[in-house]
Amino acid sequence: MNDQGEKGEKLEKMRHSASHVMAEAVGSLFPGAKFGIGPVIEDGFYYDFDLPRPLTPDDLPIIEKGMREIIASDSPFTWEEVDKDKARRIFCEQPYKLELIDELPDQLLTIYRQGSFTDLCRGPHVESTGEIKAFKLMSTAGAYWRGDEHRPMLQRIYGVAFETEDELGGHLERLAEAARRDHRRLGKELDLYSIHEEAGPGLVFWHPKGAVVRHIIEEFWVKEHIKRGYEIVYTPHIAKLDLWKRSGHWELYHDYLYSPMDVEGQEYIIKPMNCPGHILMYKTRIRSYRELPIRWAELGTVYRYERSGVLHGLARVRGFTQDDAHIFCRPDQLEDEVIGVLELAQFMMHTFGFSDYEVLLSTRPERYAGTIEVWDEATRTLERSLARLKLPYMVDPGEGVFYGPKIDIKVRDALGRGWQGPTTQVDFNLPERFDVNYIAEDGRERRVVMIHRTVLGSMERFFACLIEHYGGAFPVWLAPVQGVMIPIADRHLEYAQRIKGELLAEGMRAQVDARPERMNLKIREAELQKIPYMLIVGDNEVSDSTVSVRLRSGDDLGALSLQGFKAMAKGAIEAKR
Amino acid sequence: MNDQGEKGEKLEKMRHSASHVMAEAVGSLFPGAKFGIGPVIEDGFYYDFDLPRPLTPDDLPIIEKGMREIIASDSPFTWEEVDKDKARRIFCEQPYKLELIDELPDQLLTIYRQGSFTDLCRGPHVESTGEIKAFKLMSTAGAYWRGDEHRPMLQRIYGVAFETEDELGGHLERLAEAARRDHRRLGKELDLYSIHEEAGPGLVFWHPKGAVVRHIIEEFWVKEHIKRGYEIVYTPHIAKLDLWKRSGHWELYHDYLYSPMDVEGQEYIIKPMNCPGHILMYKTRIRSYRELPIRWAELGTVYRYERSGVLHGLARVRGFTQDDAHIFCRPDQLEDEVIGVLELAQFMMHTFGFSDYEVLLSTRPERYAGTIEVWDEATRTLERSLARLKLPYMVDPGEGVFYGPKIDIKVRDALGRGWQGPTTQVDFNLPERFDVNYIAEDGRERRVVMIHRTVLGSMERFFACLIEHYGGAFPVWLAPVQGVMIPIADRHLEYAQRIKGELLAEGMRAQVDARPERMNLKIREAELQKIPYMLIVGDNEVSDSTVSVRLRSGDDLGALSLQGFKAMAKGAIEAKR
Repeated sequence: MNDQGEKGEKLEKMRHSASHVMAEAVGSLFPGAKFGIGPVIEDGFYYDFDLPRPLTPDDLPIIEKGMREIIASDSPFTWEEVDKDKARRIFCEQPYKLELIDELPDQLLTIYRQGSFTDLCRGPHVESTGEIKAFKLMSTAGAYWRGDEHRPMLQRIYGVAFETEDELGGHLERLAEAARRDHRRLGKELDLYSIHEEAGPGLVFWHPKGAVVRHIIEEFWVKEHIKRGYEIVYTPHIAKLDLWKRSGHWELYHDYLYSPMDVEGQEYIIKPMNCPGHILMYKTRIRSYRELPIRWAELGTVYRYERSGVLHGLARVRGFTQDDAHIFCRPDQLEDEVIGVLELAQFMMHTFGFSDYEVLLSTRPERYAGTIEVWDEATRTLERSLARLKLPYMVDPGEGVFYGPKIDIKVRDALGRGWQGPTTQVDFNLPERFDVNYIAEDGRERRVVMIHRTVLGSMERFFACLIEHYGGAFPVWLAPVQGVMIPIADRHLEYAQRIKGELLAEGMRAQVDARPERMNLKIREAELQKIPYMLIVGDNEVSDSTVSVRLRSGDDLGALSLQGFKAMAKGAIEAKR
Repeated sequence: MNDQGEKGEKLEKMRHSASHVMAEAVGSLFPGAKFGIGPVIEDGFYYDFDLPRPLTPDDLPIIEKGMREIIASDSPFTWEEVDKDKARRIFCEQPYKLELIDELPDQLLTIYRQGSFTDLCRGPHVESTGEIKAFKLMSTAGAYWRGDEHRPMLQRIYGVAFETEDELGGHLERLAEAARRDHRRLGKELDLYSIHEEAGPGLVFWHPKGAVVRHIIEEFWVKEHIKRGYEIVYTPHIAKLDLWKRSGHWELYHDYLYSPMDVEGQEYIIKPMNCPGHILMYKTRIRSYRELPIRWAELGTVYRYERSGVLHGLARVRGFTQDDAHIFCRPDQLEDEVIGVLELAQFMMHTFGFSDYEVLLSTRPERYAGTIEVWDEATRTLERSLARLKLPYMVDPGEGVFYGPKIDIKVRDALGRGWQGPTTQVDFNLPERFDVNYIAEDGRERRVVMIHRTVLGSMERFFACLIEHYGGAFPVWLAPVQGVMIPIADRHLEYAQRIKGELLAEGMRAQVDARPERMNLKIREAELQKIPYMLIVGDNEVSDSTVSVRLRSGDDLGALSLQGFKAMAKGAIEAKR
């Protein structure tokens, strides 16, 4: 075990002990409280209670105070092995514990005690309550006993615990920063998108300010794909269910597919994937080995059913636009094609400001299509591609899709949180199911190899990631509004409008804040809207033909000539900064 | 009656008489033939027969020969009024005629005779068969008696007839040209799109060469809209059925809507229209009069059920992408907004090479939403907009949509055929149903006026129109492949590839035809593919750093420097030629 592991184990013991201390404090506050379970989770712990009244946020400081007293008393944790009968006697007033005891195998059970509290628990714990360091209770939530909606609803208290107050402070600061950057919050504040109960959960409406970012990304994406030898295609959003039966998607994923629609007695579904459509187009004529590789890219909107409970802003939705592409190639072209995809993926990640990512190679799972030989050969090809690119990677054994091995890239945002990034998947299955071939140099029909790949994933999730990564302060090239003109008085309005016109003519996104409000308020609101450039114009600027430039960071660049400002802004846009 | 009308009436009489002559010829060939009906249609006529055997294309010349003999005999058309009893005796062996007689009111009926043929017919006819001039039988088809699939299937023969052989020849030439330009034929020959029985009829798959044209159009469309103060939005393709009940689309158009899907016990449908989605976004916050007009544009894909019998290539489909926009404005802004839309529509039509179009103003229909005052005011506003633009137009009385008056533009293609073009519709209904308001200058809530508009219609139908208008020879800026390099021998291949690279770097779409085929075959195929520029390179071109340019028209421009060619091609692209 390494230091990290030792430290982790120590932290876990401390967090678990904190949950017992919390339970003791709650027990003192609510005599007759019934206890559920209290495990360790990431960064902390929780405990579930059956209490005589609902908890309010005001209860948490009181419980924390009780916990601090227990910690100050430095009571030892002691343990004992008891048989089930004795355990039943100890927990005779704790129905949830009794239920757990009944279900445990007939052997000695461990119980832990500290102060006035006794729990059925395997441990381990710290030596005494004094070892519990920095902690904080975070929130309460309802939780069904054993996760079963037919059992009683208990009250859960969540807490976090760290070894030092500094670490706790850092954690709370990260949480606050994550909340400030939450794309659901910024999506509303910056007027980027909305989701409507009237239309249905998980269905995204892109407002102008979100849509302009998406459109810039899509335009850039299309250009970059064309440059790299892809061709753009469009396919319909519905198709006969039979197509999805043939592809195997119905059998494997029907829980995620929408229910069929009836059209002239035939069942149609809204598409969950773009691949079968591309295959139909491939098969409209005989393809020669000379035509391959064929690289077809589509910003293809797909629909998958997710339970409403798991939907999350833009990050988990029911309809999303994949930046999809399928490559049809010969086996001897696979290595170069994978390299091409990975290079494009890296280029895209860097362009959008993600320099921290990890690469995972997922290999053959237990259930798989094709032969072991083909899998091994394809996996070796992926390894060779990664080696040629000198890309460090980890192997995720058995985590490939059933139809082939894959390379996933997981990116880390500015707060160090991981997001699912580009994926490159080899597919042996669909070419078999749809009989997708080419005529080889020797005149014989051969199976193509298919690659499925996305480099952004979906426009929705990628946008969520971008919003949180930048905290809504998009780089200039993506900013919905790049510059706002702020006239100091009404007499500067005409000049402001003229400058705006000049910026629009250069293809920049500029606005004038012409409201009859004070300059400071306009500046404050422009900062909240994360507009990169505030161009303040008053008497001096009008007479000198300049603009006073203020950045959203609060930095003042002073007066610049209009030429000077345009050069600076266009430089940032061209460099995709 | 004007000359046009007189000429038209004369033609109609002649075509109707030709149908009787055809019936006489068929009757001579098939004794015992039973006759259905034989009306005049555009450019000609048809007659439905119940015959002892199916007709084949070989029968048509024989029937034509019979008709020519009847015409040569110059038999007079005579008519007589008879009562129903006498009519029944005359047509005692003609069950279809008897059925018609039974249903006619109890009064004198007209019968027409020529040669051996007698028909129940109101006339009028020409004086004698000799007046029938240039005609031709075109095709046969099955047709249910009285259009009822439960009645017998008759055999229909279609013919055309004109006053002169020249006019007939012109008509046949136009038909042949239309067939050559048929977008379904060119769609296949030029590899532009496909439709698949496996996915479902009426669902379009855009192949790379069609998709690139669509993408260029969309990019241009977006830029032009942004320039004119529109903002781009995206909305999902499915929504709860309730939304469409509230909008009124369900009640009015449910025959065209797809059947609902079940999601967590709620009914969802695939969207037939984009408007309710834009309204939901509008209503995410309170809008001030200062924010208006709001112009939201979406390339929104919608799905409408059409019976498979009426589907037609790209022109009538089940899923299509509207170049949609909704304008939310104050009543006092309506006139300027309509002018803006009409200017944009004209600009678009001219850009895509349509200079011939007519403008129709459709007024209040019998069933309408809103008050007569509001309708009259809006109609006057549309009239004022048209007058300010000095746009000649015709009024189509009562042809407005139930929710407001509209202006439609019908464009004529290179063959003079009409296509549905831009539409601008005022809507009083949805703002009421969804309570869509703004805060007026006086602080009170007022209803917005909504405009629905498309300037291309749908990407699918517009593309069909473009293909047929240009006969597949798209102008350079739209051509899927703008230039093809044709090396004379293998030793010129490297030079060809280098030139192609230079063209690609300029953003042009260029290919090299590297196949081991003869130059003449490559030129012929490039012409069939309607590629604007063929760049032939041999020893001279390599040594002089030139390209020999051949146009798809067959014109040779001789050797040009690469710079000279690029300047020419880029000039055409920039001028959208």
